[in-house]
Amino acid sequence: MKKILAFSALSMATVCTQAQQKPLMGFTPATSAKQLQTEQKFDDAISADRISAALKDLSAYPHHIGSPGGKVVADKILAKFKSYGFDAHIQTYKVLFPTPKTRLLEMTGPTPFTASLKENPLAEDPTSNQDGQLPTYNAWSADGDVTGQLVFVNYGLPDDYDMLAAMGIDVKGKIVIAKYGKSWRGIKPKVAFEHGAIGCIIYSDPKDDGYFAGDVYPKGAYKNETGVQRGSVMDMVIYPGDPLTPGVGATDKAQRLDRKDATTILKIPVLPISYKDAQPLLQSLDGPVAPAEWRGALPFTYHVGPGKSTVHLKLEFNWNLVPAYDVIAKIKGSTYPDEWVMRGNHHDAWVNGADDPLSGQTAMLDEAKAIGDLVKSGWKPKRSIVYCAWDGEEPGLLGSTEFVEDHDRELQQKAVVYINSDDISRGFYHAGGSHALESFMGEVSQSVIDPETKATVGDRAKAHELVTAGSVKARKEIMERKIAPIEALGSGSDFSSFLQHAGVPTLDIGYGGEGPGGEYHSIFDSYADYNKFKDPGSVYSGVLAKTVGHAVLRMADADVLPFDFRNLYTTLDGYRKELVELANNMRETTAQQNQLLKTNAYQLSADPTKHMDAPIAKAEVPAIDFTPLNTSLLALKASAAKLADKTAAAPALAADHKMLNETVYKAEQQLLSPNGLPRRPWYKHSIYAPGFYTGYGVKTMPGIREAIEQRNWEEAKEQIAAVAASINALAVYLDKAAM
Amino acid sequence: MKKILAFSALSMATVCTQAQQKPLMGFTPATSAKQLQTEQKFDDAISADRISAALKDLSAYPHHIGSPGGKVVADKILAKFKSYGFDAHIQTYKVLFPTPKTRLLEMTGPTPFTASLKENPLAEDPTSNQDGQLPTYNAWSADGDVTGQLVFVNYGLPDDYDMLAAMGIDVKGKIVIAKYGKSWRGIKPKVAFEHGAIGCIIYSDPKDDGYFAGDVYPKGAYKNETGVQRGSVMDMVIYPGDPLTPGVGATDKAQRLDRKDATTILKIPVLPISYKDAQPLLQSLDGPVAPAEWRGALPFTYHVGPGKSTVHLKLEFNWNLVPAYDVIAKIKGSTYPDEWVMRGNHHDAWVNGADDPLSGQTAMLDEAKAIGDLVKSGWKPKRSIVYCAWDGEEPGLLGSTEFVEDHDRELQQKAVVYINSDDISRGFYHAGGSHALESFMGEVSQSVIDPETKATVGDRAKAHELVTAGSVKARKEIMERKIAPIEALGSGSDFSSFLQHAGVPTLDIGYGGEGPGGEYHSIFDSYADYNKFKDPGSVYSGVLAKTVGHAVLRMADADVLPFDFRNLYTTLDGYRKELVELANNMRETTAQQNQLLKTNAYQLSADPTKHMDAPIAKAEVPAIDFTPLNTSLLALKASAAKLADKTAAAPALAADHKMLNETVYKAEQQLLSPNGLPRRPWYKHSIYAPGFYTGYGVKTMPGIREAIEQRNWEEAKEQIAAVAASINALAVYLDKAAM
Repeated sequence: MKKILAFSALSMATVCTQAQQKPLMGFTPATSAKQLQTEQKFDDAISADRISAALKDLSAYPHHIGSPGGKVVADKILAKFKSYGFDAHIQTYKVLFPTPKTRLLEMTGPTPFTASLKENPLAEDPTSNQDGQLPTYNAWSADGDVTGQLVFVNYGLPDDYDMLAAMGIDVKGKIVIAKYGKSWRGIKPKVAFEHGAIGCIIYSDPKDDGYFAGDVYPKGAYKNETGVQRGSVMDMVIYPGDPLTPGVGATDKAQRLDRKDATTILKIPVLPISYKDAQPLLQSLDGPVAPAEWRGALPFTYHVGPGKSTVHLKLEFNWNLVPAYDVIAKIKGSTYPDEWVMRGNHHDAWVNGADDPLSGQTAMLDEAKAIGDLVKSGWKPKRSIVYCAWDGEEPGLLGSTEFVEDHDRELQQKAVVYINSDDISRGFYHAGGSHALESFMGEVSQSVIDPETKATVGDRAKAHELVTAGSVKARKEIMERKIAPIEALGSGSDFSSFLQHAGVPTLDIGYGGEGPGGEYHSIFDSYADYNKFKDPGSVYSGVLAKTVGHAVLRMADADVLPFDFRNLYTTLDGYRKELVELANNMRETTAQQNQLLKTNAYQLSADPTKHMDAPIAKAEVPAIDFTPLNTSLLALKASAAKLADKTAAAPALAADHKMLNETVYKAEQQLLSPNGLPRRPWYKHSIYAPGFYTGYGVKTMPGIREAIEQRNWEEAKEQIAAVAASINALAVYLDKAAM
Repeated sequence: MKKILAFSALSMATVCTQAQQKPLMGFTPATSAKQLQTEQKFDDAISADRISAALKDLSAYPHHIGSPGGKVVADKILAKFKSYGFDAHIQTYKVLFPTPKTRLLEMTGPTPFTASLKENPLAEDPTSNQDGQLPTYNAWSADGDVTGQLVFVNYGLPDDYDMLAAMGIDVKGKIVIAKYGKSWRGIKPKVAFEHGAIGCIIYSDPKDDGYFAGDVYPKGAYKNETGVQRGSVMDMVIYPGDPLTPGVGATDKAQRLDRKDATTILKIPVLPISYKDAQPLLQSLDGPVAPAEWRGALPFTYHVGPGKSTVHLKLEFNWNLVPAYDVIAKIKGSTYPDEWVMRGNHHDAWVNGADDPLSGQTAMLDEAKAIGDLVKSGWKPKRSIVYCAWDGEEPGLLGSTEFVEDHDRELQQKAVVYINSDDISRGFYHAGGSHALESFMGEVSQSVIDPETKATVGDRAKAHELVTAGSVKARKEIMERKIAPIEALGSGSDFSSFLQHAGVPTLDIGYGGEGPGGEYHSIFDSYADYNKFKDPGSVYSGVLAKTVGHAVLRMADADVLPFDFRNLYTTLDGYRKELVELANNMRETTAQQNQLLKTNAYQLSADPTKHMDAPIAKAEVPAIDFTPLNTSLLALKASAAKLADKTAAAPALAADHKMLNETVYKAEQQLLSPNGLPRRPWYKHSIYAPGFYTGYGVKTMPGIREAIEQRNWEEAKEQIAAVAASINALAVYLDKAAM
């Protein structure tokens, strides 16, 4: 208990006083002081101007996977790493990547209309009119030629279809139109298909990132009427990466599935459109008025359909194998060359990709330069540092996933940590990842100064959380917090395979909140847009470089690796409480709803002129026995405390802690479940996964949580046992390490 | 306790079983059975077809106060009452009523634009193109000719100006444009004036009652682009009624204020406009983007201003004295002619007024006819029944207020109850008023069958509450409720002076929820609109007639008047808890906010590219001593219980309960506070008043509640004493009655 308090005091203080008073986690007073000097040199070497110039250079042309521009960018990155003194090469995989051959969307009735499917370039944005842009499309849509009545399905999530059913509307044999937002876009066509739809259109409503949200481009940052969000609709919650090579690297010699057997490719045609193209379709709908929460910001009454509005959607794709160029760059460790501190960010974009991915990529390149400068000045990391610029993230984390699948055994042996970033903007620090690294990141976030406020980025993030907290209670909880929390990771960037497939300790670090807009995956994600609206002068890419750089350097040089499993325990126990509450709430809600059904309340309350069925009676929620989970967590609590005592004492002994360190960085693998998650065995982590019906959004303890959400009580019981087994395995493992 | 349980069982049962098993409140088994027979005859006499025909007839022409059409309607109503056998006459007051002489709204920059200030008539609505319509305006606007920069102020309430101040925007010397909604419209220009604005425009955003809400007229019920909500902006929370004669009847000989001394007339020009007229004004605004919750459904980015947009507003009015024709119709009581059961609904409209007020007025007329038929068949009420059709409600409750002020002493002697209605539509029963009548109304609501569901209207209302409850907890509370609650009354209809000035026990009864729309106070509040969208065939006006009719008949014939002060106690004790919680929440919120200010959290969280000041530090909320209130409530609890025992026993005694009844119906007057509310002495009721900054919306225990809300701790203390004194007076009074 005393230790936890000391600890928290540390994470709350500012770096300057801290440094003088207390060594960094995992360092002795002497090595800590030296480390801070190294970090100071590192910081001095970071240049926002250089980052901004690199951003302009690398975003000069479209550079999606498989494109000439993509090869140019990979080669430029390779050359940079080499010039910084890294041992760098390109590792190439061969992956499936569909590009459009035919795109046709027309309304055949009640009023003929053909969608333009085209973004209008702007004189104010010099790269918006280039050749080589990918047309607006969703990768992994099925080929298809379908005609059907149109139905508006809100965000296209399961609850939306429940509402439609209550309104007496079935989408079987129909084409649905869904709004972008609320979930990973790939969930929308998947759920549409599950409900029998034959096609899916996804549009960006101006309420979400168009004129309702703010002034539109180029006056402001938000989506103008022709802007379209491209993007992958791969069913990535089954497995990410090349659909033809699940679980193995997509090397030349890899065995490949037949395309028709690849479960992550969609079964129906899907197409993204602008709100200009969506307007005539939506405005023509009849049928009931859409529920209030479904309505967007277009200037008419939203109806659900179906009715006279009939739509013809024809899509064909080139299903080509293309090279994915992963650039891998290494500085060999002086003491532990086989312990790898890994760092990555993708380099491929949908079009020019100034924000996504280059705001993060250019920060990473500047980190590499600064580390190279340190090496040139005589410094050497104890552990090896491996920088990775991934290709093919946009279509489905292709480059990183194939790399991890190709090297999984080696990574499980050598990878101490994988630190990811992606697109960022001006604003607030945030981090997610393995919770044994929570205190570590709390410390890192106190070592970087926010350029706008001169506070530490950690203090600024906390202030923002406090000010934007939704209630007095929430604010109180934040105030009373001892340790700055990191988020659990779902999916949506290259950390996924490291953490969720290989069990490598993982972090994802970013900045944002002051650079919102509507340029995402459009031709307007350009240098002109980025430098005006997202992060002028790439100042926050510089801040990101310092933040991640400190994390990399500390992980590379720590005497004892700064893992603390007590934080993991606290977090997991929090998830347990959430699950108990989830089940209790479902029990109470179900009982109440059944009582309302019994007393006929829904019929009495309904307007007979409107079709609105009462909810379907559900079986009462049984008692769920969480005892195995409780027991495993108590074991983890004890072992984490023991290990913390040992590691706290360790640096002072000034011995070689290789054995202890190796044990500690491999501990995350104990949380992998041998069978993976139900119906998606690729996902092996028992704590973190993207939600089956949310996509990017994380579900923690996903086996249990989703079983409860789906009311599968038998599976909930099995999954409680499975998660408890993982946690028990970790507890036993840590116990041994603490001996 | 046993009695309360018996009681609740009663209110939950259906009318049929009830009738056989238990006498009605205040009746013996014998008189109860007879009463139910009378009600059956009454119900049989109600005719929705006749109501619908009267609706069409009375809404055939514009009939605002002072208009030829208004006189015709008053005369027709008088003739009807007479033909039903009532002793009827018109009582005339002379009241101020401004009508427009000049209306000009133009934008002088950045783009010249002149507002049309005109609703476009529709071929589908035959009365929408008539002569004699009042132009679109707000009554009691000041005369004025002002030019200034335009600022968008959301709904124009105090919080909105706090937000503007934080954004660095001052409205001094500027013209504001506010959305209709969230408050009584008169609050908007009043608050604008308090903040230094020189003019106020109010418009109907399509988000609130236009195309966002549903299909627009004539396809649907919602406001089309030229629809305008007329309405009064009198500062009615100071006093309602004729501005020149506060506190006294506006008879010929009444002393009148100089118009400039009438505090309820606005100080700046105010004008309502359509969203078609508002669009160019709002679209031209620059300055910061409006906060997300402020934005409406027009298809552009809402900005706040000020900037280049400059507006010229010129308004002049005819300030005429006009006659207000109150139609008063009476059936003399057989046993207690000096005990009056009063019933009212206004007859004046802004234009044709099919919904407002005729949906309620025609119901009331059919009640009168059915009562007349009963009388013709030989039945006589024990108490006198007085039906009132008020004029001039729309500009500010003129007719009813002048009547009450003119007859206040007599009413305090004779009025057993005043039962009000106003516009209604298809949907759910609701009632508000004096809480000693809560159980009574629970019983009444179980005596009427809903035509759509065949449930009692009480059961249907409860089912609707259950289904639409916002949380599991709220739903649970509704399920566990013993007595159907009635709402506390604020303002907005003719009950105000009866309850809040004279202390007459009051009820307000209505139906709604299935007939929303945008026709309110526009030329489209027509028979065509009403019969299509609000209540086809006036079916629910028939239901209202039965509901109110039962209440009138039971109050007229009860052996012991059905007041139960135990419900009043429970309600008041609930208000006390709310006030304690309000103070506690303010205390916690204030302390937390001050702590955030101390740690600089607002500055750290703010985006330096945007102007957003931290909130101003507020003094901590002191401990507030509610003991006097607690003590008075305990006294009331005891005396209410004693009186309940006596009244429960009374009917069985079959004696004449004149004394008891008189005492009981005058009890509400004990809650009048001699000095009235702070800064608005006309409002004498210590429990119910319209909110000083909400208007229609009620504030219960307003003296205390508003003092706390305004952080006036000294006044809160005084008002706790004042309210406690009222409650104590009532407790002593009831104690005497119970002896």
